[in-house]
Amino acid sequence: MDVQQVRSLDEIIKNNLNSEQLKEYNRIHYGRTDHCELKLQDSTLAAGKEHDFEVAAFYFDAAKEVRPPKIIKVGLIQHSIVLPTNEPIDKQRDAIFFKVEKLIDIAASEGVNILCLQETWPMPFFLCTGEKEEWKEFAEAADNGPSFQFLSKLAKKYKMIIVSPILENDNGVWWNTAVVIDENGNYLGKHRKNHLPSVGSFSETAYYLPGNIGHPVFETKYAKIAINICYGRHHALNWLMFGLNGAEIVFNPAATVPEFGESFWGIETRNAAIANSYFTCSINRVGTEVFTTKVGQKEITRSFYGSSYVTAPNGHRTPGLSRDKDGLLVVEMDLNLCRQVKDHWGFNMTARLDMYAKEIKKSLSGE
Amino acid sequence: MDVQQVRSLDEIIKNNLNSEQLKEYNRIHYGRTDHCELKLQDSTLAAGKEHDFEVAAFYFDAAKEVRPPKIIKVGLIQHSIVLPTNEPIDKQRDAIFFKVEKLIDIAASEGVNILCLQETWPMPFFLCTGEKEEWKEFAEAADNGPSFQFLSKLAKKYKMIIVSPILENDNGVWWNTAVVIDENGNYLGKHRKNHLPSVGSFSETAYYLPGNIGHPVFETKYAKIAINICYGRHHALNWLMFGLNGAEIVFNPAATVPEFGESFWGIETRNAAIANSYFTCSINRVGTEVFTTKVGQKEITRSFYGSSYVTAPNGHRTPGLSRDKDGLLVVEMDLNLCRQVKDHWGFNMTARLDMYAKEIKKSLSGE
Repeated sequence: MDVQQVRSLDEIIKNNLNSEQLKEYNRIHYGRTDHCELKLQDSTLAAGKEHDFEVAAFYFDAAKEVRPPKIIKVGLIQHSIVLPTNEPIDKQRDAIFFKVEKLIDIAASEGVNILCLQETWPMPFFLCTGEKEEWKEFAEAADNGPSFQFLSKLAKKYKMIIVSPILENDNGVWWNTAVVIDENGNYLGKHRKNHLPSVGSFSETAYYLPGNIGHPVFETKYAKIAINICYGRHHALNWLMFGLNGAEIVFNPAATVPEFGESFWGIETRNAAIANSYFTCSINRVGTEVFTTKVGQKEITRSFYGSSYVTAPNGHRTPGLSRDKDGLLVVEMDLNLCRQVKDHWGFNMTARLDMYAKEIKKSLSGE
Repeated sequence: MDVQQVRSLDEIIKNNLNSEQLKEYNRIHYGRTDHCELKLQDSTLAAGKEHDFEVAAFYFDAAKEVRPPKIIKVGLIQHSIVLPTNEPIDKQRDAIFFKVEKLIDIAASEGVNILCLQETWPMPFFLCTGEKEEWKEFAEAADNGPSFQFLSKLAKKYKMIIVSPILENDNGVWWNTAVVIDENGNYLGKHRKNHLPSVGSFSETAYYLPGNIGHPVFETKYAKIAINICYGRHHALNWLMFGLNGAEIVFNPAATVPEFGESFWGIETRNAAIANSYFTCSINRVGTEVFTTKVGQKEITRSFYGSSYVTAPNGHRTPGLSRDKDGLLVVEMDLNLCRQVKDHWGFNMTARLDMYAKEIKKSLSGE
């Protein structure tokens, strides 16, 4: 077995532990002895088989209380690119659209209200090449580029909120941006990646600047949502501000490879859900992308490990999608759980933010 | 199998996966395919057997670089109480001293330089009773109480830094405090728990106030260390300030039970190590403590789940000690890893603390 090619850790565990051991594993590792699977429709199972998509669905309950339940369904899509990266850019993008549309159709048929795609979903993650000019047609306007046009129709058709992480071109200035489209297909707003990696030979700082629009939370028809893009998940304060601004769900669309911290893929986003008493959704690319640089004809290969999952405010989490397959994860959640967990654990009550605002300021002044 | 009584998740995994699967599990879950065990001395193994202590030892390497390696050994002790909680207080404490001394002797023989005990280690965790008067003799002066007297001798004898989390009585005012004793047996300083839980019927706020001395980092002979006591691990900013103040190792002495978030015991402290590029040490009590309240003669039982472990700044972690047994975890670490990880991941470089200081302040003013 190639250690980089295992399909899923969850599968290994499930196939090797007996039912009592599995319960105990799940209790300690996932927070509940049972994963609370949702039954999928026959049509979904058939479509999954036909197109070789993985589809999985789970639910998170909340306690009954004075407020009526506020139950919604969230969908996460992880997908590989379709054409080689040296094909014409519009063809590459259209091929991705064609595949993703099928996944969105399934999500709609499963009743998904809010859907989020992976980081810069309509393109290969070419940032590892260090080249820019060759790829510029992938950068697009947030509110009327090809991705917006494509998703707007689907959002309207399915009354779905869609979060679309793209490479934004705003009058010639690039940003790593997540666009939020409302259930009528209208542009609702955007968030720009706040923290940019320069790790080893990989750097995004040659492409765009750190986000300049803070920590917006979007009050959609179904939930208050925010987006923390990829590397931003390493920053506790990024997560904190989305929470202070009222988010019930924070998405973390990513594009990350095993050598960049796969062992903490299960840690950071989950920790953020616990620390801030909201739901978090971790979405990563799958598949292998191969690039040949224009200068030097160097071949660069990057393999993403999928493993998308959802964590509830109480720290319970779903299993991950596979490490290597296109997939849709559907999660039903009662948003009442956010306040219930806040009331139980009291992390907001005990946060002492006044003390920290002063201490951080003091540390900055070099006193 | 009683799901509350499994000895260790690591044991279940190790006994049921084949060696290739185990490598893959370790890679994704722990960050490295091999746990890097250290060989224990025969005398340690014999002492462990004699006294029914678990002893485990691991190491974390760093890359060779311009600075010489800075290798030290840290020891964590998890232990149960010895006598019933209705015995005279000095007898209860002496019995714990008697047991812990044996564990410290072993730690010394294994070359431990810095040792940390669990939260309020010289007493049962009586705070669940809500009663105070009956237990007041457990509260002691930080710099000359019975615990300090006892540990000071051992610190001097073994040239060891000892972190001693106690219930402090400072001129009649109680605090949840960690005392740092230097390698000459002298009082070096203390930290007071910054965040206090009131979760369900359990509350510490009737006993003492949130800490009033910020986030001290102690520059000891062997390393720069700090202490984040128990519930403080839920607060990302608490961890952050210890990092900004220069900590290389942060200890999290705790007293926590399965129903209070065992599923995120492996998440938060590990996340803190990653986010702040330092080592974190998670220490929890073991054993069952039974109390009978004076008023109403109500019986209260609390079972702690041990599982003490260490995480390196790169997110790699050791297996945990057992859930139910007294134990010593010895971890050798090269402190150079802290700066190496900072340089690699760049979380400090990309932290944008000025932006957050402003945003937190703004959120506090209710603008």
